Amino acid sequence: MSGAEELKQQIEEQTKVFAELKRSGGDKALIKEQAFLLNELKEKLRIANGGDPNDKKGESSKPIALKTPKGTKDYGSKEMSVRSDIFNTIIKVFEKHGAVTIDTPVFELKEILMGNYGEDSKLIYDLKDQGGEECSLRYDLTVPFARHVAMNKISNIKRYQIAKVYRRDQPAMTKGRMREFYQCDYDIAGAYDPMIPDAECIKVAVDVLTQLDVGAFVVKINHRKILDAIFEVSGVPEAKVRSISSAVDKLDKLPWSDVKKEMVDDKGLSEQVADKIGEYVLLKGGEELLAKLQSMSELMASKKAQEGVADMALFFKYARIYKVLDYVSFDMSLARGLDYYTGIIYEAVLVEENVRPTQAQPTATKANEVKDGNQEIDETQIRVGSIAGGGRYDGLVGRFSTSKRAKDKDSGKGNVPCVGISFGVERIFSIILNRRQAAEIKSNRTMVYVISIGDSLLEERMAIASELWDNDIPTEFMYKVKPNFKRQMDNCDNEFIPWGVLIGSDEINQGVVRIKNMLVKAEGESKDGITVKRADMVAELKKRLQMQMQK
Amino acid sequence: MSGAEELKQQIEEQTKVFAELKRSGGDKALIKEQAFLLNELKEKLRIANGGDPNDKKGESSKPIALKTPKGTKDYGSKEMSVRSDIFNTIIKVFEKHGAVTIDTPVFELKEILMGNYGEDSKLIYDLKDQGGEECSLRYDLTVPFARHVAMNKISNIKRYQIAKVYRRDQPAMTKGRMREFYQCDYDIAGAYDPMIPDAECIKVAVDVLTQLDVGAFVVKINHRKILDAIFEVSGVPEAKVRSISSAVDKLDKLPWSDVKKEMVDDKGLSEQVADKIGEYVLLKGGEELLAKLQSMSELMASKKAQEGVADMALFFKYARIYKVLDYVSFDMSLARGLDYYTGIIYEAVLVEENVRPTQAQPTATKANEVKDGNQEIDETQIRVGSIAGGGRYDGLVGRFSTSKRAKDKDSGKGNVPCVGISFGVERIFSIILNRRQAAEIKSNRTMVYVISIGDSLLEERMAIASELWDNDIPTEFMYKVKPNFKRQMDNCDNEFIPWGVLIGSDEINQGVVRIKNMLVKAEGESKDGITVKRADMVAELKKRLQMQMQK
Repeated sequence: MSGAEELKQQIEEQTKVFAELKRSGGDKALIKEQAFLLNELKEKLRIANGGDPNDKKGESSKPIALKTPKGTKDYGSKEMSVRSDIFNTIIKVFEKHGAVTIDTPVFELKEILMGNYGEDSKLIYDLKDQGGEECSLRYDLTVPFARHVAMNKISNIKRYQIAKVYRRDQPAMTKGRMREFYQCDYDIAGAYDPMIPDAECIKVAVDVLTQLDVGAFVVKINHRKILDAIFEVSGVPEAKVRSISSAVDKLDKLPWSDVKKEMVDDKGLSEQVADKIGEYVLLKGGEELLAKLQSMSELMASKKAQEGVADMALFFKYARIYKVLDYVSFDMSLARGLDYYTGIIYEAVLVEENVRPTQAQPTATKANEVKDGNQEIDETQIRVGSIAGGGRYDGLVGRFSTSKRAKDKDSGKGNVPCVGISFGVERIFSIILNRRQAAEIKSNRTMVYVISIGDSLLEERMAIASELWDNDIPTEFMYKVKPNFKRQMDNCDNEFIPWGVLIGSDEINQGVVRIKNMLVKAEGESKDGITVKRADMVAELKKRLQMQMQK
Repeated sequence: MSGAEELKQQIEEQTKVFAELKRSGGDKALIKEQAFLLNELKEKLRIANGGDPNDKKGESSKPIALKTPKGTKDYGSKEMSVRSDIFNTIIKVFEKHGAVTIDTPVFELKEILMGNYGEDSKLIYDLKDQGGEECSLRYDLTVPFARHVAMNKISNIKRYQIAKVYRRDQPAMTKGRMREFYQCDYDIAGAYDPMIPDAECIKVAVDVLTQLDVGAFVVKINHRKILDAIFEVSGVPEAKVRSISSAVDKLDKLPWSDVKKEMVDDKGLSEQVADKIGEYVLLKGGEELLAKLQSMSELMASKKAQEGVADMALFFKYARIYKVLDYVSFDMSLARGLDYYTGIIYEAVLVEENVRPTQAQPTATKANEVKDGNQEIDETQIRVGSIAGGGRYDGLVGRFSTSKRAKDKDSGKGNVPCVGISFGVERIFSIILNRRQAAEIKSNRTMVYVISIGDSLLEERMAIASELWDNDIPTEFMYKVKPNFKRQMDNCDNEFIPWGVLIGSDEINQGVVRIKNMLVKAEGESKDGITVKRADMVAELKKRLQMQMQK
């Protein structure tokens, strides 16, 4: 059988398979795939019969859409260079606090994710059912972390994880709301004495944000038990707690009158109950707020309030030792959306853009000013200043625990208490990227460019580059047999390569190279650089790179 | 309306939605989600009616499966520590050669991926159609890279990317075949003079594998044009070239007689043609093989063979300059599966496990020995020794180019020639992990543990830790008000924390701390360590950490 005959036979078979698949109303994607295979076979036959392989008649005439999926994007080398600096800064702080890292799959069993995100679970990406388990892309890093801790019966771990998460949300690229984005989490899991790891999370937040130099920020803190007690003593019905809590959370952007209106008109709360809530949630301040709360006898009659206030008293003691008090604002209106928080909650917000954080400004923050009275809130607008957030979640690991006791008791086996913080790295990335001129970003780490003056000298350039590589000096040269001198010089400029090793036939004959500072003319050096013996080249360059690093 | 009444109403509505959804035979996953929401509402009503929130009767009694999806796994902190060392070593080599990095989304439009992987396209993971575009998880990093280059009209870039890819293959965890795994790619795109970037890819491969210390390896090389010429002059029909090529590729594990049998009996080749192929593909050696090929007049009559041999002659010249000749084996049986290669191809294979690469052993390699005569080949077994591979692919970017000229001409605009190498980091990871005792791996970077002798001293421990953090010294202490002394000491042992700062009430009263080497007793120090003034603590620790790093 000739090749063409064999192909004809294959095409016949494939045509049958394809027709049957279409007839039976099979899976759309599968039909597309089979159609593609059929086309491919036909194209092969055309070529086997003497057709021109470069003549792509057999190919679908519809051009491929050259784009990334909606809500996703590529990051180019300059963006990646900035991103990598940010990640390294954050990781250094995390590791300074003893954290380790773990890695979990990008997709989880669907049932692991379900039941953690309330209404937002509609934003979860599912994988197609191609046979086997139902899987979904992770929505955050917290639930996979809790699953990991429960699954491996880990009793304590301090871990960080920087990885992408997926939300099938309406993207708003300009606002930085993407369907694929990085999260950057630091969590301490384990049964420890109260508020010690909690205070360290705030210390980590302050260290990270200060070192990243994102601008002035304030860390708002509150306690879930105090909030619960406020709703309890104000008389909010159990079933309304969640929606009232989310209304309260809007106080960072709306005036009290608007929030009250929402509670009464939309959520069906009585005006009296709303006013009572207002007495509490409008309070904010520093450590002195503790005494104020302790003096409110109706509130303090609640056991939850007592526990929450005791936690906060400890927090302020520890925050003073960690020298982070100046960054903290005790804000009774901070509620945070997620159901799983059980203790302290916090959120770091920028207070004024483009102002360096010389001193935090915990009062008079722009973030607390009213932006507009519009009740139709765009959630991304509300949190526009938020760059980190988290809190204590003591029940989540227990949810995944197979141990019965974990589900029954707070202190049960398998129910590992956790506290953590998540940094909004995408927003931090935008802030830092906006501040820098793209043109000024060096995306490579190349230190030396080997340049030929006038001649080819390819083999000599290769030999020099190879020697420099073997001495751990990042080096490039132009991949041309006859490189243009000006283009070699331009490459150094464009890529911010600081040192040139220049050779011409004179240098080769004399056994020397010229070393030239390509970016700044060093003192005492001529514009042609200095000439050193070829044997001294590596030592001379190392000395210069060392000096540069110390600057 | 009371909260309970509101809930009842919600449950009624949800019940209707759910019934309608089930009746209409709606999406399975959606039904599950809706059922979950209904259950959640019922549970809330139960609690609103005074039910005990800790009594989880309302929850589904079926426990959640505590596992990661099939073919995926978590990586714990010790594994991540080893992995991170490997990545850092590789990245350092890549950046030494001037490479930058980019990031692409984990999923691509399905049509971007289709048509690149032949039959293996059935292994592509698709996302569920939840409205919008059809997307699939990336299968490798090469196709997204080509899409990125075409989309951004990049004319030249040297980039690396280390990221996870997805294949819905039958997993074999013990063999390291996973459905989610890392790829680690280095590619040079751009129109350069022949073989200069190609030779650098081999230099990069040798540098990476030597620095990772994976064991003795050899880099097999061949050229797609020479292979094509061999099939042409042997008389293989065009339509059979691909299947014959894949048979030839098995020569690293099967004897010629078996491969010939496959060609003749299974692939329908005449015995005469098969024998002619055998004359060529059994050749292997070093640079001297070039002269041998050049003397084969029938082969060299082919223009393709002339081009391939000319390329290889240049390659050997450059490989000598880069001092990598000793690692290279010119092997006419290397074919590699992927369709898109157009020039040099290569594959690094381990030649003997657990042997340090003092000198490469390009002859007598175990990888070339026949393992068994079994015709039923397990593909993972064939490539068990393969740890890196790649080649030149000049047409792939053009496939995505919107420019017409790119599709018509090799040198057309938009058709950016590429050459690259991909490292099998999962296999490298297994090799290196197997060599190390898990118990010996330090997964954190903590350098100091602050220890209380006998007393609580929590605030003092916190203050010391805070001071050390502020001086960039990675520090931990026990999150207990009254820490057990032995457990503090054990933590240092278990976590390989080298330095202890010990305090007791005596030390506090005298304004001193004790610094003790927890792992090795330093010379001239008592077993209790040395006592320094509290004010000198940071300087003293920095000095010791510096000394440790220089060792």
